[in-house]
This record gives sequence, structure tokens and C-alpha cells, in this order.
Amino acid sequence: MVDGGHKAFGWAAKNESGVLSPFHFSRRHEIVGIATKVGKNVTKFKEGDRVGVGVIIGSCQSCESCNQDLENYCSKLVFTYNSRSSDGTRNQGGYSDVIVVDHRFVLRFPDGLPSDAGAPLLCAGITVYSPMKYYGMTEDSGKHLGVSGLGHIAVKIGKAFGLRVTVISRSSEKEREAIDRLGADAFLVTTDSQKMKDAVGTMDFIMDTVSAEHSLLPLFSLLNVNGKLVMLGLPEKPLELPIFPLVSGRKMVGGSQIGGMKETQEMLEFCAKHNIVSDIELIKMSDINSAMDRLARSDVRYRFVIDVANSLSPASVISCDIKEHVDHEVSVMSRF
Amino acid sequence: MVDGGHKAFGWAAKNESGVLSPFHFSRRHEIVGIATKVGKNVTKFKEGDRVGVGVIIGSCQSCESCNQDLENYCSKLVFTYNSRSSDGTRNQGGYSDVIVVDHRFVLRFPDGLPSDAGAPLLCAGITVYSPMKYYGMTEDSGKHLGVSGLGHIAVKIGKAFGLRVTVISRSSEKEREAIDRLGADAFLVTTDSQKMKDAVGTMDFIMDTVSAEHSLLPLFSLLNVNGKLVMLGLPEKPLELPIFPLVSGRKMVGGSQIGGMKETQEMLEFCAKHNIVSDIELIKMSDINSAMDRLARSDVRYRFVIDVANSLSPASVISCDIKEHVDHEVSVMSRF
Repeated sequence: MVDGGHKAFGWAAKNESGVLSPFHFSRRHEIVGIATKVGKNVTKFKEGDRVGVGVIIGSCQSCESCNQDLENYCSKLVFTYNSRSSDGTRNQGGYSDVIVVDHRFVLRFPDGLPSDAGAPLLCAGITVYSPMKYYGMTEDSGKHLGVSGLGHIAVKIGKAFGLRVTVISRSSEKEREAIDRLGADAFLVTTDSQKMKDAVGTMDFIMDTVSAEHSLLPLFSLLNVNGKLVMLGLPEKPLELPIFPLVSGRKMVGGSQIGGMKETQEMLEFCAKHNIVSDIELIKMSDINSAMDRLARSDVRYRFVIDVANSLSPASVISCDIKEHVDHEVSVMSRF
Repeated sequence: MVDGGHKAFGWAAKNESGVLSPFHFSRRHEIVGIATKVGKNVTKFKEGDRVGVGVIIGSCQSCESCNQDLENYCSKLVFTYNSRSSDGTRNQGGYSDVIVVDHRFVLRFPDGLPSDAGAPLLCAGITVYSPMKYYGMTEDSGKHLGVSGLGHIAVKIGKAFGLRVTVISRSSEKEREAIDRLGADAFLVTTDSQKMKDAVGTMDFIMDTVSAEHSLLPLFSLLNVNGKLVMLGLPEKPLELPIFPLVSGRKMVGGSQIGGMKETQEMLEFCAKHNIVSDIELIKMSDINSAMDRLARSDVRYRFVIDVANSLSPASVISCDIKEHVDHEVSVMSRF
């Protein structure tokens, strides 16, 4: 279980496939646990440390991306689940009570962050934190960010960066929650044509978390000159890209995919400092079937975290999240 | 002709509409001439100066864009041709031997730049110079720029900025010319599948000057992680935007439209310093019908400049250019 001294942990690859086979499509990449064994060349961690494992557990570690702490864009990326490991087996990610991970891909979990509500930051947090930094949203305070699709952690992190945040949604259903609970400054319903017209050209950035097919033109209209639209969802088919608004307003649309390990560590410290966690419902492993039914109806605000530690023996914890419309994600917290 | 002392020139609006009516769709916005009269509050220019007028002759001068020297993105932009002037008439741009322009929109034409081959820089030059600066192409030397659609001035300015430049084209027809005459480092034919495969992930930036409908996917493939695709053409219909390459490689696609007056002046000085001019064919006004026929066949490398000064009385000069596929542009040089 300890490979050449470079692995951080001794969680065994004990896969709960019997329990989990109905959910083999689900993800499982937001893992928090305790380091139970540390390789001899590992200096960053010691046994007993509370640590996290996110979306990736491997990369080539020698390409241009890896050398720039952008392992997340390495072409030899190994995902925490469903990737092939070096021994040819398929990774099970958080659907195990023990996992062995190269120390480069293990994160210190700050004291201030709870394991359950903090675990989803390992994917959902870094997914919005990284583009906020890369696309310049944090450079000048007071810029206006639209969050399309209610990425609730995007609202929280955006506010912590001093942005003015407007949630953009197809219905007004979540308006009070977005403002009162998440701290958004405003809520814009896309079917309200007068309010959409009033909002033309008022936003500096929009983060689009919607994975369903949708039109980008209304979002471009909301952007001011030099405005940036960042795609975080993954629509299956290409979307229509109108060129005129790009050219006439020097606007752009870009993407982003999680973040590198260094930046993920930075994000965790940032969230600990600003008391940012995910809104979760903690459930037992035995509740997972009903939880998956509720996910399919978007009936969760905003993530299920499965307390595997108190469901199985040996103990571990799994969390599930949902993005508006499509995505179901599952992650594991083990032995904490 | 001199309006409140803020106008720079006394070129009268003598429109050659009889001559030009067959080409009323053409543009005429690259004008070089001599200042024949200067308003009393104008300090930047004096009578006899050689000056230029580009694509725009007016803006609100008080909005956020104007205050940032980005008049080109002002929502009240007045184009040099075919916009409504304050008196309600339609601008004729360079299709006149005299033009009156607010001094903010007049450029000093550097001594080192010839009036005829330099005139097209007032649109074609700034159109590529501005996004090279804005999108960070000039920050690190040695980056790799692809130019799709053979924007010949993009190749020249890119080389002057120290970029490695590859022309991307549908046919090999212009290969020797691109390399031997324009100074491109390489030439990539999009129908050569092996060479396209070899070039995957090798470019940091691509400038896409093609206005015809086309696929962006092959261009995204050529870009490395963090690669930027800049659209300069104006396809009439939306293009297909595949989201996966944006997200998985943190790539982006943005637009750009000419440049502000301050940056246009900077571009002219840069081109004068680096001996960058347009490749042109100088013709007389009487040749314009055959020139337009040749433009329709893409039979010009790269711009016609019409020597109005020696075609009409009083003398002036008009230039026409073509972008690959679609665009016909006409500009005026007057009395020099």
C-alpha cells in the first residue's frame, strides 16, 4: 500500500461495489479523512493529519502544465474515480474506505473547515475559485459577477472576494434563498424581459454553471465591454456562439476545469479564513437510494454528504452534490 | 467647416457620389491627407501636417469606454462612413476630397510611413495590433501565433512583436508568399490531416480573420492549454462553440474591434519604427470598376489604394482592401 515511499496514505482499496453498483455512474471525488500511513519520503504530512483528496490523484508531473502547478490540465491526468490506475484497474475514488494517493495530490485540510461541509470544496470550491483568479475577477474590488445556474459556492466565494454578485436563474423560486441565505446582492430572472433589458451591459463577469443546452446571447448582452463569460458546465452539444457581441464589445467566453493542487490548497485556506463551506444534508449510506431519487428531482440544497464513517465498518463518509439540471456528483470522506 | 474650433480640418464634404454610386456598399475609412485648416482650440495639429483618419470620427467622449481611451467600444460610436452625422446626413468617409473631423479622431501620420501603403494600417493595422496587446500576445517573446485566413498585416506585426507566426489556410496556394514575402515562420494547410495532427496543442494564440461560416473545433485543437482564439471576422450566423475544449484546456475565444485613438496612434508609431506597411496596388479612380471585379475574385495582394489625388480635382487618394472570402473595404487619402 505504500509505493516507493511516495504515497501519503495507507487506505486500502477496499471497494464497496456491492453497495454502490446502482450508482456506478456517480462521481466520488471529494474525500476528507485521516492519514493512517505515510511513505518514508513524504514530509508534508504525518500520520493522524486530517487531509483531503479531490478530483485528481495523478498526472505526468513533468509537462509544461505540471511544471506550472496546473496538473489539472496535464494530458495524462488521472481522475480519482473511473480512471485507469497504473496497475490497469479502474479507480473507485471515494467509494472505498481506504485510498492510497501520491502525496502531491493530497491536501492539508485546514483546522477551521468541518470535514463534512468542507469536503465539497475539493471539487465545487476549486471549480469556481480557480477561474475567479485566472479571469481577473479578484483584481479590482467591486466588480459585478453574474452566477448563472445558482452555483451556491460561487456566490459565497465571489462575495468573499468583494464582488457584487447577482444570481441569474430561469425562475424566481430561489430568490429569497439566494439573497438571504447565500448573501447574493441581487437575483435576475431571465424570463423577466424588462429586468433583463435594465441589466444589459451591467456585468463584468458571468460564471455559467448550466450544463443543459442554452443560449449564450442573453448572457453576452448582460456583459459590459471587456466582459468575460466563463463556462463551467459541460453541455453535451456545441452551443451557438454569436460573433458580433464578442467583436463589438471585446467580450470573451472561456472555460476552466477544477484547479491545480497548489491553488486547491490556497482555496481551502481561503475558505477556512472566510468561513465558507457548502450547504449540505448529512445522510447515512443506507439513505443513498432515496437521496439519488431526490437528486434526480433537484431536491437538495445543495449537497448530500454521506456519513460513511457511521454507515460502514471501517467508517467513511461520502458526499453527493448536484449542479442545476444535470450533474450528480459523489465523493468520499473516510475515517475521521 | 470649422465647428466651434474643435475640428481639425477643413476638407469640404464634396462627395463624388456620381463616380461611386455603384460601390455604395464599400467602406472608406483609411484616409491619409494634409490638414488644411485647424480649429482655434486644436493644439495637437497645425496646418500642413500629414494626418490620418481611420474607422471612427465620433463617440460620446464621456462614457466609461471613452474615458479609458476605448472610443471604439463607445455605444455612441460614429463611423467614418455610413453613420448619421449630428446634422442627420450620412457620412461619406473617404469618398470625398475634403473631410472635417473632430481632432480627437485625427492621427499624426509618422514621417517614416508612406501615405499610400501606410493608409490601410488605419483599419487593418489597428484591428490586429489592439488584440495582440489586449490578449497578452506581446507579454512574453517567442509565443506561437496562428493567423487563420492570411491577415497579412497580422503576420508582419506579429513578427515585429517577436512572435513565431504560422499562417493557417485552406489551401497551400499562398505558402511561398506567406513565408518568403510576409515573413511567416510556417504555413499550415487545414486539409493536411497529418500536419494538423502534428500541430495539435502547439499554438498559444490564433487570430481568426475568416468571415465565412467555419468550424472552430480544429482551431481549438491547435491551441495549447490557456490558448486564446481571437475572432476578427464577422460571420453572419453564429458559429458552433464546443464547450469541452474550452473547459478541459482553459481555452477561450474573444473578439476585438479596431482600437481606441490613443492605441491607434501607438500602432502607427510602432509600424513606422518597424517598417511595416500594407502590400498594395496603387490605382487611379478610373480603374475602380475593374478593381472591384478583381476584389470579388480575391485577385489582389493585398489592397488596392486609389490615388484620388491624381484622379480627381482637387486631388485625393482612396484605398480598397480585401479580407479573405468576404470583406471589401475602401478608404481615402486626400490632398497629399
